[in-house]
Amino acid sequence: MKAVTFGEIMLRLAPEGYLRFLQEPRFQATFGGGEANVAVSLAQFGIDAEFVTALPDNDIGEAAVRELRKFGVQTSRIVRGGERVGIYYLEKGASQRASKVIYDRKYSSIATAKPGSFDFAAAFSGADWFHFTGITPALSAETAENTLLAAKAAKEAGLTVSCDLNYRKNLWSSEQACKTMEKLMQYVDVCVANEEDADKVFGIRARGTDVTGGKLDRDGYIEVAKQLTERFGFRAVAVTLRESLSAFDNVWSAMLYSEGEAAFSKKYPVHIVDRVGGGDSFCAGVIYGMLNGFDRQKTVEFAVAASCLKHSIEGDFNRISAAEAEKLAGGDASGRVVR
Amino acid sequence: MKAVTFGEIMLRLAPEGYLRFLQEPRFQATFGGGEANVAVSLAQFGIDAEFVTALPDNDIGEAAVRELRKFGVQTSRIVRGGERVGIYYLEKGASQRASKVIYDRKYSSIATAKPGSFDFAAAFSGADWFHFTGITPALSAETAENTLLAAKAAKEAGLTVSCDLNYRKNLWSSEQACKTMEKLMQYVDVCVANEEDADKVFGIRARGTDVTGGKLDRDGYIEVAKQLTERFGFRAVAVTLRESLSAFDNVWSAMLYSEGEAAFSKKYPVHIVDRVGGGDSFCAGVIYGMLNGFDRQKTVEFAVAASCLKHSIEGDFNRISAAEAEKLAGGDASGRVVR
Amino acid sequence: MKAVTFGEIMLRLAPEGYLRFLQEPRFQATFGGGEANVAVSLAQFGIDAEFVTALPDNDIGEAAVRELRKFGVQTSRIVRGGERVGIYYLEKGASQRASKVIYDRKYSSIATAKPGSFDFAAAFSGADWFHFTGITPALSAETAENTLLAAKAAKEAGLTVSCDLNYRKNLWSSEQACKTMEKLMQYVDVCVANEEDADKVFGIRARGTDVTGGKLDRDGYIEVAKQLTERFGFRAVAVTLRESLSAFDNVWSAMLYSEGEAAFSKKYPVHIVDRVGGGDSFCAGVIYGMLNGFDRQKTVEFAVAASCLKHSIEGDFNRISAAEAEKLAGGDASGRVVR
Amino acid sequence: MKAVTFGEIMLRLAPEGYLRFLQEPRFQATFGGGEANVAVSLAQFGIDAEFVTALPDNDIGEAAVRELRKFGVQTSRIVRGGERVGIYYLEKGASQRASKVIYDRKYSSIATAKPGSFDFAAAFSGADWFHFTGITPALSAETAENTLLAAKAAKEAGLTVSCDLNYRKNLWSSEQACKTMEKLMQYVDVCVANEEDADKVFGIRARGTDVTGGKLDRDGYIEVAKQLTERFGFRAVAVTLRESLSAFDNVWSAMLYSEGEAAFSKKYPVHIVDRVGGGDSFCAGVIYGMLNGFDRQKTVEFAVAASCLKHSIEGDFNRISAAEAEKLAGGDASGRVVR
Amino acid sequence: MKAVTFGEIMLRLAPEGYLRFLQEPRFQATFGGGEANVAVSLAQFGIDAEFVTALPDNDIGEAAVRELRKFGVQTSRIVRGGERVGIYYLEKGASQRASKVIYDRKYSSIATAKPGSFDFAAAFSGADWFHFTGITPALSAETAENTLLAAKAAKEAGLTVSCDLNYRKNLWSSEQACKTMEKLMQYVDVCVANEEDADKVFGIRARGTDVTGGKLDRDGYIEVAKQLTERFGFRAVAVTLRESLSAFDNVWSAMLYSEGEAAFSKKYPVHIVDRVGGGDSFCAGVIYGMLNGFDRQKTVEFAVAASCLKHSIEGDFNRISAAEAEKLAGGDASGRVVR
Amino acid sequence: MKAVTFGEIMLRLAPEGYLRFLQEPRFQATFGGGEANVAVSLAQFGIDAEFVTALPDNDIGEAAVRELRKFGVQTSRIVRGGERVGIYYLEKGASQRASKVIYDRKYSSIATAKPGSFDFAAAFSGADWFHFTGITPALSAETAENTLLAAKAAKEAGLTVSCDLNYRKNLWSSEQACKTMEKLMQYVDVCVANEEDADKVFGIRARGTDVTGGKLDRDGYIEVAKQLTERFGFRAVAVTLRESLSAFDNVWSAMLYSEGEAAFSKKYPVHIVDRVGGGDSFCAGVIYGMLNGFDRQKTVEFAVAASCLKHSIEGDFNRISAAEAEKLAGGDASGRVVR
Repeated sequence: MKAVTFGEIMLRLAPEGYLRFLQEPRFQATFGGGEANVAVSLAQFGIDAEFVTALPDNDIGEAAVRELRKFGVQTSRIVRGGERVGIYYLEKGASQRASKVIYDRKYSSIATAKPGSFDFAAAFSGADWFHFTGITPALSAETAENTLLAAKAAKEAGLTVSCDLNYRKNLWSSEQACKTMEKLMQYVDVCVANEEDADKVFGIRARGTDVTGGKLDRDGYIEVAKQLTERFGFRAVAVTLRESLSAFDNVWSAMLYSEGEAAFSKKYPVHIVDRVGGGDSFCAGVIYGMLNGFDRQKTVEFAVAASCLKHSIEGDFNRISAAEAEKLAGGDASGRVVR
Repeated sequence: MKAVTFGEIMLRLAPEGYLRFLQEPRFQATFGGGEANVAVSLAQFGIDAEFVTALPDNDIGEAAVRELRKFGVQTSRIVRGGERVGIYYLEKGASQRASKVIYDRKYSSIATAKPGSFDFAAAFSGADWFHFTGITPALSAETAENTLLAAKAAKEAGLTVSCDLNYRKNLWSSEQACKTMEKLMQYVDVCVANEEDADKVFGIRARGTDVTGGKLDRDGYIEVAKQLTERFGFRAVAVTLRESLSAFDNVWSAMLYSEGEAAFSKKYPVHIVDRVGGGDSFCAGVIYGMLNGFDRQKTVEFAVAASCLKHSIEGDFNRISAAEAEKLAGGDASGRVVR
Repeated sequence: MKAVTFGEIMLRLAPEGYLRFLQEPRFQATFGGGEANVAVSLAQFGIDAEFVTALPDNDIGEAAVRELRKFGVQTSRIVRGGERVGIYYLEKGASQRASKVIYDRKYSSIATAKPGSFDFAAAFSGADWFHFTGITPALSAETAENTLLAAKAAKEAGLTVSCDLNYRKNLWSSEQACKTMEKLMQYVDVCVANEEDADKVFGIRARGTDVTGGKLDRDGYIEVAKQLTERFGFRAVAVTLRESLSAFDNVWSAMLYSEGEAAFSKKYPVHIVDRVGGGDSFCAGVIYGMLNGFDRQKTVEFAVAASCLKHSIEGDFNRISAAEAEKLAGGDASGRVVR
Repeated sequence: MKAVTFGEIMLRLAPEGYLRFLQEPRFQATFGGGEANVAVSLAQFGIDAEFVTALPDNDIGEAAVRELRKFGVQTSRIVRGGERVGIYYLEKGASQRASKVIYDRKYSSIATAKPGSFDFAAAFSGADWFHFTGITPALSAETAENTLLAAKAAKEAGLTVSCDLNYRKNLWSSEQACKTMEKLMQYVDVCVANEEDADKVFGIRARGTDVTGGKLDRDGYIEVAKQLTERFGFRAVAVTLRESLSAFDNVWSAMLYSEGEAAFSKKYPVHIVDRVGGGDSFCAGVIYGMLNGFDRQKTVEFAVAASCLKHSIEGDFNRISAAEAEKLAGGDASGRVVR
Repeated sequence: MKAVTFGEIMLRLAPEGYLRFLQEPRFQATFGGGEANVAVSLAQFGIDAEFVTALPDNDIGEAAVRELRKFGVQTSRIVRGGERVGIYYLEKGASQRASKVIYDRKYSSIATAKPGSFDFAAAFSGADWFHFTGITPALSAETAENTLLAAKAAKEAGLTVSCDLNYRKNLWSSEQACKTMEKLMQYVDVCVANEEDADKVFGIRARGTDVTGGKLDRDGYIEVAKQLTERFGFRAVAVTLRESLSAFDNVWSAMLYSEGEAAFSKKYPVHIVDRVGGGDSFCAGVIYGMLNGFDRQKTVEFAVAASCLKHSIEGDFNRISAAEAEKLAGGDASGRVVR
Repeated sequence: MKAVTFGEIMLRLAPEGYLRFLQEPRFQATFGGGEANVAVSLAQFGIDAEFVTALPDNDIGEAAVRELRKFGVQTSRIVRGGERVGIYYLEKGASQRASKVIYDRKYSSIATAKPGSFDFAAAFSGADWFHFTGITPALSAETAENTLLAAKAAKEAGLTVSCDLNYRKNLWSSEQACKTMEKLMQYVDVCVANEEDADKVFGIRARGTDVTGGKLDRDGYIEVAKQLTERFGFRAVAVTLRESLSAFDNVWSAMLYSEGEAAFSKKYPVHIVDRVGGGDSFCAGVIYGMLNGFDRQKTVEFAVAASCLKHSIEGDFNRISAAEAEKLAGGDASGRVVR
C-alpha cells in the first residue's frame, strides 16, 4: 500500500520548553507541515509514503529532505528550486497561556512554484491514496492550482483522495477558502475536519457548540457530517473532538461518519507535551485504518489512539508505531514502564 | 502614566527543570526581585516604569541594568556602587516536593547603601504611583531608612503609594517586621498581602484559615481587609488567595477590598511552570487597573488574570501584555493555539 | 547503624525530557540500579551505607564509583574487573505513552563475576542490615550464586535481610525466577513487592486486582502478604500500591504487613518527574523505619512519603533527606515555596 | 556625541559550535546586521547611538528592538510594519572549512518599506554622524531610495557621513552596485572597505593583491585609497586588511588614509571565535576615533584593536568597551587573567 | 556507480566539548564505524552507497538505520537481529592531552552474526566497489569468516576491493591480525594504511619513522608501499601521513602509490574539531577518485582535501560534498566566509 | 602518604564557552579554590588528601563537600557554619581578550570563621605534608590568624609545609601581603610562586623580566629563587614560567630550585581549554614528586606535565592521573588517540 501527500514542509522554530519567543537566544529547529506530518506518520505505520513538495536548492532545503528520508518517506519527486523554506515560529503555551504561531511562509518554494511543476502522474503510479489539506491551496494562487491538478490526477489514477480542511485564518478569509475548497471537494472521498473547520470554510456549524469554551455536542457533529456528506458526496467524514481545558490539558476524541452511521471513539484526557500535528496524526490514522479495511469503529479508535499519543511527542511528526497505537486503542492507557 | 518602584534586584540562580541544587553543574541565571518584577510587569502593560536601586559597578550589576532596559524599564537613577549583587538560589519544587529558596543577599549594594543615597524627588517628578514591598525595609536598617525616605517623598509629591507586605521569615522576625512596617503604613494607600502576610506582620488573621492545608475562607479575608483598613486607613486592600494543592497545582484567585466592599475574582486552576513573582505580577495588575480607573471587579480580574499567566512563564518577570491578561480575564482560558 | 546492599549499578542513558530514543543525538548519562539506589537513599537518610558490586577497571566504572562516593556511600569493597558497565536505555513516557526500558546489561562485570569474588564477610562486619533485589540473581547463574553466598553470610553475621522481589520479565521467566528466589527466601526477613511481583515470581495473587487497569484492592494485598508470610516465614512484608492513571499521573501508597497486622499509608496523587527508582526509595524507607524502630504505621508512612518524593526527582537516586520525607509524612504536601 | 545608523537587522540562525547546518535540531538565535552592529558597538563605547530600520509588528520584530535597547541603542524611530524579519543562516567554518551564509532576507520589512517611510530629519537632529553600508541599498530599489534620502538628509543636517562598501555578491552584481553606490558616494565623507570591496564595486584594485591567497601589499592599498579619494573626494578612507590563513586563524590589521597620508595599524594574529561583524566593529572604531578627534594613527589602532577583540566574541555585536579596546591598542595582548 | 561497505556501526558516546568522561552527566550520542563512515562519505559525494551490517531489532538499532538513511545510504540489506549495538566511548583530547577511546563492542549483533548471515551476492549486484577495514575481521571469528565471504563474493562479482588495514591493538594482537589479514589480502586491489598499520599488521616498516614523535619520511613510505605491493599484488596503496603536533594541531597529507609511482599530496596544517573518521574519509576520497578515473595525483589530492575537511566536522561522518573537497584541493584553504 | 590543605572552596560561576558574562542567562557552576584544587589533584595522583575549610550548613555548602568527596578527598574536618559560600565569576578569555574574574567571596564561612575554629592537630595526625596559599591569609584577619595556627601546628606535627604565594591584588595590597606572609614564611619549607608573586609580595624581582610582554629570563628566576631561599630558608623554591602569547596560547614551563641548583623543565606550547588552576596543579605535582622522593628534575618535569595537562581540562580541578602526567613527562605530547 502506498500513499502520497502534497503540501509544504516548513522549518519550525520553537523556543525550548515553555519559554516565550526569544526569551533565550535559541530555537529548536525541526520540520513540519500538515501533509509532511501525514506522510511521516504513515511511514511509521509501515505504509509506503511519498511526499511531494518544492524546496530550495540550499542546505536548509536539503535538511528538510534528509529529515523526511530518515523516516523512510520517499522524496525523489520533490522539486528543488525557488527561494526559501517557509518558516513557522511556535511558542508553546502552558496552563492558561495559549500556544502562539507566527507564520513566515510567504514566497516559499512551494508557494511560488508554477502550476504544472510537479509530476503527479508519476507519483501516483502504483499508489492507493492521496492526501492534502486546506493549507496548501491557501498558500497562493499557484499552489491552489497545483493542488487542483494533483486532486484531478489522483482521481484519474483511481486513488482515494482525502482532505483535511484545516482552516487557517492567517492565510485566507472564509470567503476565499470556501471558493477554492468547494472546487477541490469534488475530487475528495474522505473529509477530515476539526471543530471549527466546517463552519469557517463552508459555514456548516454544529448546533450548541461553543468552541472556545470547549463544549462539544455529539448530535451536532453528526449533523455537520451529514451536511458535508450531502453537499459534497463524501465517502466518509472524520471529525476530531478536542475539549481544551487549558494549554496543558485537553480531552481528545473523534467521530467517523460513513454510510449514514457515526462511530465515536473513546475519550482520552491528555496532558500535553506538544499538540501541533495532532490533527495530522489523526488523518494518518484514518488513512491507515481505511487502507487496511478496518471497520468504522476500529478505524476511529486507531486514529484517535495514534493522535492521542502524538500529544506526548515533541515536534510535528508522530513518532509512533502502529503497534503502539493499537496497544493504546486496545485499552492500555496506564503509561506503565515497559521493561 | 508613570510608576516608580524601589527595592532590590537579585541574580537568581536556579537549576534547570526540576533538578535539585547542583544536581548538574549549571544554573539558569536571570534577575528578579519584588519591586523590579513589578516595574517590568508595568512596562509590559505599557506603563512608563522606573526602577530605583543600587548595584555594584561591575559586569554583574551592569547585566542587571541591561536586563531591565531590555523591557523598557527606566534605569537612569540606579545608583552604581557597593560591593555585590544579591543572590537567591531557587530550586523548583515538583508534585509534593516544595520549592526551596536560599538567600545570599546580605551585604548587597542596596542593603549597604547609606540613607539618602537615592534621589527619589527626581524619580517621582511626573510620576503617579510608587510601589515597594516589605522585603526592602527588611534588608537592613539602611534600606528601612531609605524606604521611609522614599515613601515620604512619594506622598509629598502626591503619588499613590502601594506596598506588598511580603513577609520573609528568613529576613526578619514578626516583631521586627511589625515595628518597621507600621511606621511605613502611614504613607501607604494600597496594601497588598498574601494569605500569611497580615498575620505574620501585624497579627491580623483570617479566621478559619489553614495556610498549609490550603483552605481559604472568603469572609475571613474580608475581615482581614477590614481590620487592615481600619488600622492604617488604606484606600484599598488586595489579597491573593492561593490554594496549594501541590508544587505543580494551585488554585489562584484574589480579593480586592475598597470602600467597604470586596470583589472576588474568578478562580484559576494553574498547572505551574514557575510561580516565583506571582504576587508581584498581581501587584502590577492592581496598579495597572487602578491607574486606568478600572472598577473594583475589573481591577481584580485583570490582576488575577495577569498573575495567573505569570505562573506559565519562566523567570521572575511576567512577560505578558495587557492584551493577553485582558483576553484571559475576558474568559478565554482554553489555551488553544493562536495561529 | 550500617546497611549493605549488593547488586548491579548501570549506566542509565536517557533522552532529555520527553524525547523518544535518539530523537536528538544526546543522552542524559547517570547511574542507577535497584540496590545502588537503596544504598544512596539510606546514605541520604544518614545511615552508614555500603554498596558491593563489580565494575570494570576503566573510566566508566570509575565514574560509577565516584558517583556513589559523592553521596557518601562506601565503595571500598567494590571489585574492579570484568569487561563492561551494564547499560539501560530509558525513554520517559508522557500522558498515555508508556516509559520504555531497553536493557544492555549482559556480560557486565557483575554478571560475569565468579562466585566467591566478593568479601561479604568483611562488608557485613559491624553492619545491621543487608538488602538485595530479585534483579541481581536474575542476571546470571554466577550472580544468583553470589547472591546466595551474600544472603547466607548476612544471616550468619546476624544481619536483618530484606529483598525486593522486583520481577523483570526481560531477565528471566517466572519459572526461573521462582526456582532461584525460593532458595533465597529462607534467608530473608523482610520482603518487599510491588503489585505484580508476588504473582509473577511465586504465583501469589491479590484477588480482584487488575494491574493494567490500575485498580487495587486492600484485602487482596493483605491476603498476598499473609500467604507470603506463611510460605516463607517473613518478619514483614511491604507492598507498594501504584495506581497508574497515565505516565504522568499515579496514585502512590503502600502497605506494611507484620505480626498479622497491615498498616496502609496515606495515598499521594503524584504528578511524575521520574518514577524509576520509586520502589527502591520505598525499600530504603522501610529499612530506615525498621532500623530506627519506628512502628508499623510510622514506617510505612515514612517509606511512602520518601518514595512519593522520589517521583519528583530526576534520576534513579532519591535525593531526599529524612527530614524532607518526615515533613511530607507529617502532612505538608502543599509544595509551597520554602524561603 | 550622537551617531545614527540605518539598515537592516536580521535574525541570525546559527548551529552551535562548529556543527553544520541542522546537524542538530537547534539554532542559536541572535540578531545582527551591518549598521545595527555599528550602533551597538558605538553604544558600548559610550556614544549616543540610534538605529533606524523597519521591523514587523510581531514578537520577532519586538525581540529585535529589545535586544538593541538592552545595549542602550535608541530605537524610538524604528518603523513597525511590513511582513517579516530578514534572516541569515550562518554556519561557522573551522580550520580549512569556510564559514557559510545563506540569506533569507528578501521581502523583509525594511526591504519593502516605501521610500519616505523614515523620519531621518528627526533622527539626525542633534546628531553628529551618520553611517550606512553598501548592503542596505542592495536590498531593494526601495531601500536604495531610502538610503539616498538618508544620506542627503544627513548632509543637509551637517553630519559626517560614513559608508562601509560591504559588497555582497548574493545581493547584487558589480554593475548594479557601482551604479547605485556611485550616486551615494557624493554624500560620503569617510569610506570603509575591505580587501575586495573597492574592486568589486568600483573596479579599483590593489596591485599585487591575491585575496584568496591572503597576501596583502601596503602600497597597493595606499593606491586604492588614493584612487577612491580622487574619484569621490573622501575625507578619509579606511581599509581592513585580513590575511585568511584558515577559518580559525587570521591576521588582522588596517590602514587609515587621510590628508594624503596612510597610517597602518599593528597586526594581530587572531584565533577566531566569531568573525562576523568584524568589519562593522572596525567601522565603529573609526567613527569613535574621529568623533573624539584622535589622530590618524590612534584612530586606526583603536579601530583595529576593537575589531580584533570582536573576533573573540560570539554573535554579530561587539561586546567590548572603549577601555578594553584601548588596553589592547596600548599593547597588552597577552590575554592574562584579570583578577 | 555503486559502492558497498561491510562492517560495524556503533553508538558513539562522547562528552561535550573537551570534558573528560562523565565530567557532566551527558553524552553526545551519534553513530560511526569505519565502513559506515566510508559509505556515508561516498553518499555525500554522490555515489550510490550501500552499507551491510547486523543490528538488533530494537530502537537503538533502528536509530542507526535511520541515521544512515538520512544520508541516503542504502540500508535494505542490513540484517536485524542479535542482542546489542556496539558502543564506543570517546573522550576528545585537547592540547597535550590525547583523545581516549573505550570499546564496549563485544557481543554486538555483527560480532555474533553467524557466517553466511549476509546476502553479499545480492548487495554486489550492479555494484562497482567493495570496501572493508581491518576492524571488521578483528571483531570475532564469525566476522572474520563473514568478511572473507564478502571479499570472495566481491571478487567473483567483478568488483574492485579496497581494505583499510586499520590495526586496533585493543581488538587483537599483531599475530592474530597478520594471520587473518593475510588471507584477506588476496582479494584486495587497493590497500589503505596509516603510519602504523603496515608495521603492526605485516611487520612492514618505514625506515626512519618515529610515529610518536610525528616525524615522517617520504622515501620510507614509498618503500612500505612497494613492499606491500610486492607481497600482495595490490593495484594501489594509499598511506595517510599524519604529523601529530598535539591533540589540537596535526599536519595532514597522504601518498598514493600505484604503477610503481608515488604521488604525494599537499600538506594541510589542521586545527582539529574532531579527528575520528579522518582515515575513513580519506578512503572514501580514494574510492571516489578511482571510481571517477582521476589520475594518481588528483585522486590523492581529492582524498586528502576531503579528509582534511573531516577534521573540521563533529562526529564520525564526513558531512562534506565533493564540490567542497574539490574547492579545497583546488587551492582555497583560506576559510573565508562564503556569502 | 597523606597531605592536608587549608583554604577556601568557592562556587565558580562561568558563562559557557567564550561568552561574556550573562551574554546568555546561564552559568556553569562548579567549585574551585587554590588549596581545594591541590587536594583534588593529589587525590587523583593517589595521595591520601584532606581538605579543611568552613562551609555554610545549606545545600550549596553541601554540594561543595560532595564534589570533593567524589574525588576521594577527605572532608570530615570541614566545619559547617557561617553564612555563605564564596563565589567567583569567571569569564574565559579568547585570543587577545583576557579572562576576567570577579570576586564575590567576602563574608564567606571561612572568611568569618573565628580563629581556632579548626582542629588542625587532628587533621595533621598521620599526615606528611601541609599546603596553603597566599590567598587564604588574604581573605580576612581571621583567616590570616587561622592560617598561622595551621602552619604552626603543621610544623609542630613534623609535616613539610608548602605555600604558593599566589598574590591577588583584589584581595590585599603588596604591603598587607608582605606583612602577613613574612610571618608565615618561617614555617614554610617549599615556596611556590609564579612570575609576579615574589615581586608583588616581597619585592623580589627577576631582572630583565617583562611580565606583560611574556618574556622570561632563566638567570633572573634563579636569582629570585636564591633571594627567597636566603631570606626565608626554604628547602625548595618552585617557579612557574608562563609566556602568555594570547588568551589561547601560552608556553608553559617551570623551574625547581633546591640545594643551590635549579632544574628547568621542558617547555610546552599549550592551546588553552581552561587555565584556571594551572598553578595549583603545578603545586600538587611538586608535592607529589617530593613526597615520592623524585629528584629535582623529575619533580619539576612531573609537575609541569601535570599542570600542562590541566590547561586542557574544564574547571578548576585537574582531572589527570599520575600515569597521564608521567606519560607526557616521558615525552609523548602528540595527543594521538588512545584506542
